[in-house]
Amino acid sequence: MAGADHPALTALADALVAGGVETVCLAPGSRSGPLALALSRHSGLEVTVHLDERSMGFFALGRAKASRAPVAILTTSGTAAANLMPAVVEAAHGQVPLIVLTADRPPEAQGVGAPQTISQTRLFGDQVLGAWEIFADALADATQSLFPAYITARALAVAQGAPMGPVHINLPLREPLFATAKVSAQTSPQLLWGTATTAPTRPTVGAAEARLAGRRGLVVAGPLPAHVHGRPLLHLAKTLGWPILVDPLSQLRTGPGQGAARIAHYDLFLRDQEVRQQLRPEVLLMAGQAPISAALLRTLSEWQDVPRVWLADTATWPDPALGEGLVVPGQLGLAAAALAGRIRQRPDRIWSERWQMADQAAWQEVLGASQGPLSELSTVLTLRTALGAGRPLVVGNSMPIRDLDATWPVGGRLVEIFANRGASGIDGVTSTALGVASSGTHPTLLIGDLSFLHDQSALLTARRLGLSLRVVLIHNDGGGIFSMLPQVAAPEFETVFGTPHGQSFQELVLAWGGSWQRVATRPGLRQALSRPAASRGVDVIEVPSERRANLLGHQALWQEAGGRALAAIGEVRSRV
Amino acid sequence: MAGADHPALTALADALVAGGVETVCLAPGSRSGPLALALSRHSGLEVTVHLDERSMGFFALGRAKASRAPVAILTTSGTAAANLMPAVVEAAHGQVPLIVLTADRPPEAQGVGAPQTISQTRLFGDQVLGAWEIFADALADATQSLFPAYITARALAVAQGAPMGPVHINLPLREPLFATAKVSAQTSPQLLWGTATTAPTRPTVGAAEARLAGRRGLVVAGPLPAHVHGRPLLHLAKTLGWPILVDPLSQLRTGPGQGAARIAHYDLFLRDQEVRQQLRPEVLLMAGQAPISAALLRTLSEWQDVPRVWLADTATWPDPALGEGLVVPGQLGLAAAALAGRIRQRPDRIWSERWQMADQAAWQEVLGASQGPLSELSTVLTLRTALGAGRPLVVGNSMPIRDLDATWPVGGRLVEIFANRGASGIDGVTSTALGVASSGTHPTLLIGDLSFLHDQSALLTARRLGLSLRVVLIHNDGGGIFSMLPQVAAPEFETVFGTPHGQSFQELVLAWGGSWQRVATRPGLRQALSRPAASRGVDVIEVPSERRANLLGHQALWQEAGGRALAAIGEVRSRV
Repeated sequence: MAGADHPALTALADALVAGGVETVCLAPGSRSGPLALALSRHSGLEVTVHLDERSMGFFALGRAKASRAPVAILTTSGTAAANLMPAVVEAAHGQVPLIVLTADRPPEAQGVGAPQTISQTRLFGDQVLGAWEIFADALADATQSLFPAYITARALAVAQGAPMGPVHINLPLREPLFATAKVSAQTSPQLLWGTATTAPTRPTVGAAEARLAGRRGLVVAGPLPAHVHGRPLLHLAKTLGWPILVDPLSQLRTGPGQGAARIAHYDLFLRDQEVRQQLRPEVLLMAGQAPISAALLRTLSEWQDVPRVWLADTATWPDPALGEGLVVPGQLGLAAAALAGRIRQRPDRIWSERWQMADQAAWQEVLGASQGPLSELSTVLTLRTALGAGRPLVVGNSMPIRDLDATWPVGGRLVEIFANRGASGIDGVTSTALGVASSGTHPTLLIGDLSFLHDQSALLTARRLGLSLRVVLIHNDGGGIFSMLPQVAAPEFETVFGTPHGQSFQELVLAWGGSWQRVATRPGLRQALSRPAASRGVDVIEVPSERRANLLGHQALWQEAGGRALAAIGEVRSRV
Repeated sequence: MAGADHPALTALADALVAGGVETVCLAPGSRSGPLALALSRHSGLEVTVHLDERSMGFFALGRAKASRAPVAILTTSGTAAANLMPAVVEAAHGQVPLIVLTADRPPEAQGVGAPQTISQTRLFGDQVLGAWEIFADALADATQSLFPAYITARALAVAQGAPMGPVHINLPLREPLFATAKVSAQTSPQLLWGTATTAPTRPTVGAAEARLAGRRGLVVAGPLPAHVHGRPLLHLAKTLGWPILVDPLSQLRTGPGQGAARIAHYDLFLRDQEVRQQLRPEVLLMAGQAPISAALLRTLSEWQDVPRVWLADTATWPDPALGEGLVVPGQLGLAAAALAGRIRQRPDRIWSERWQMADQAAWQEVLGASQGPLSELSTVLTLRTALGAGRPLVVGNSMPIRDLDATWPVGGRLVEIFANRGASGIDGVTSTALGVASSGTHPTLLIGDLSFLHDQSALLTARRLGLSLRVVLIHNDGGGIFSMLPQVAAPEFETVFGTPHGQSFQELVLAWGGSWQRVATRPGLRQALSRPAASRGVDVIEVPSERRANLLGHQALWQEAGGRALAAIGEVRSRV
């Protein structure tokens, strides 16, 4: 039983710690045993053990986002590794540094029918930023002892480059897995690397300024990866005197605005064609990933001929509308500061005011809609009011994140908002929330019923790891978003898209050791949220909804907000 | 709402049916909507709708195995598709024809930040036998209208080749997804293909016969893919006069033996070194995939210098022991018949008898061990006795399939046994059993607690699809197999490997709408099994076990069976 004395595996563990990894998530397995012990025994690592690798991958994702540090995951060989694929895909598109370690059979077991042996070397294909192999048992002698540290350091550097993302190290291990180490344990060799920063050059900043100056512009702050700090964008928007559309995942919608004209409810009022015409800018300054709002994405397509300047911190500049423009690479803070330093223009107050009046008008409609019976839309604002200081939110995909985007206003207390918007799947959301919870915060999860059902393993994890998670569960018995799409007219709609499941969450949540209550009124929800969450396990507050009524509520809000925004813009115009 | 009139998608659906697909499993999604409707509306297809794509993949696997027909799966874009990876890996290694259809965003949405857009073209990498793309909206005119049928036919041919396995068709679709079709619906063009068979040539059969004739040989019948019929192997073994080791997944262990000397309990008696020496053959005739038995795999490694002849029906000849030998390609039935037709030798009765006496001796020990208190080992025989005629078994990986392999004797009523032994994961097993159930059989699932917990989505599927599944759940609160491995000595054992979860299955199963009971005695288990399963949902019979006692029970059985088999072999020798 000297697995942990395997010098190559100890060197790998040391290199992870030297590279900033603090957390390892692992699932039990035979082939992965020696590395599981080496990692568990390392004093610099916090190890959590999971039973479902898919859920584990999403847990690691949440932990990495909340802690802004790379997180390592270990599985044994075979389908165990294949279960990580969904989280790896999300990490790739969400730019989250996951270090995926997979134990494997040695090369001589490949392709000859050995059990639990699949082709793992390129298992994650294009979905990882890099893939390497450390065949520890084949390292010839001490002169090669730095190899595991080199590869691990290299993988960590790639995972934390621009863009950040997942990397894969495959680890073939020969039997006997737990033989006494031939080389005595020693301090393992280390590689350390410093940090660097990137800033746009003066000519690039000059070219950007030339495209922006003297025009009516609009700043679009899309979702930013956890490690990108967006605050300098607010200062830049203020300096330009332009409105800034703040996606909830830019983390710029809440907290102080630094004097910028922040706009929140564009998803509501940009659905109106005349509003879009009135608010059409001459230039767009874009940062971050593609915004959540479908209405904004459609508007950006309509404005395809409006030239763009992209601040591309992460070496990507997402624009599904395929507009023309200039890419400004470099760290967002440096780029924004360099640009702001060159801007000399008088703010066009009327322009900003039009946007702000439209936003205010839409906000009044949101407030109005929130005074009626409890609904999916009004749940968001009720939750916002009740959220404790410093408590983050994790928000499910499909409707919850869209409803939050549409209704959550600018300002108020700073609330960190997490969602998996890389590939925007409904899978793994509760596990991600638990990963956030494991970093010591006390998040609230806002999620729909299908998404919650998809990730049941998370409920076992909450119990096993003793984590506390408050869940606001919107239960409309099926896929609410599909009612907003054209297929709602198909006769097969309920079977193929709506998919009601009739599952009782009360029994399910209690069976997993959680707590549950249903609330059907706004005061009831407020009261439920005012109680502290259970100290352990999921604490579910179920909000019943009805898909048809929800659709009508959304349609009414879109209509009213658009009309009211148009009128408000008209008032600004008439004042000029 | 004319999605189903999209001629390219209708052509694809027609081509699936023409190629033998009867079943489609799909999960709801937006991008996949038009194809979901086209498939749902096809009169030749039975469509089941699932909520968790991972579970759906394994369900399709079970359905394909039980029905011996290719099964199609459809997901929308993004992580939905990535969730299929575990089942795709299992299908690749288990040689199951799965036709994976993934909806995708069009090429102009790739890499520019469009939502739910990932790189899907090669998503499954090396794990599929082929990957194609049908970009239906870009087909220029009627002259290209055969393209979807060509690609679908090609994918089906590859999936059902040698070896069989999963294939992937990626389907980018442009918006508007549900536009009125420009081309009016018409009978879609079709391609049909015939079937062919492969037989070894006379020189190859002659070379094989030369290696086999006049020697003391042993036939090893490993797991056979569902579409390979192994019965001709029994006739060949009888003709050769050799014992034949029958893996449960060869489907040759149960039912009539056609006069062959079938051996079942080699996993028990081959653990004894002296037995292995006494039973060492001069030549091995091997068919199928690598056997379940770890003791047999170790023995085959010890016998690496014993020459092999492989009957390689599926173009693979798994032998992790890396023995030397001759590969005989071609359909198993044809190869076995050709060989049997050439064999002229007097059976060596003593040789066969030694194996049979060892097997008998081990069987007596199994019977003895089955008289004591209810245990993991004795559960198998109790289940065997109670199993209704024509009822298949689905068996989980890790310990259940090993215990079945070790204890289930030859003969009796024919029982079809299913397990996912391609990559041998503990994931997706219940879903696979439901796929088997959906083919109209009434399977019983034998599974361990970790594996059952891993696949909770299956319980929702059972309820939603109204499927009935009896489950015998071995509950030892953690990973029982690890207690058999060297890491049991590590101080971190329970945390890192044993992983007790303390989950009550009673509440969980009831919450999912199933039924549950616990039995702790053999009569109790017999009685529980004698009642018909609930007509809908999972019907769980929980058998409690204790990991330490289970280990001791196995060790005692290994020891006793080895000793008794050695004595029995000695008796045969002394009679000579």
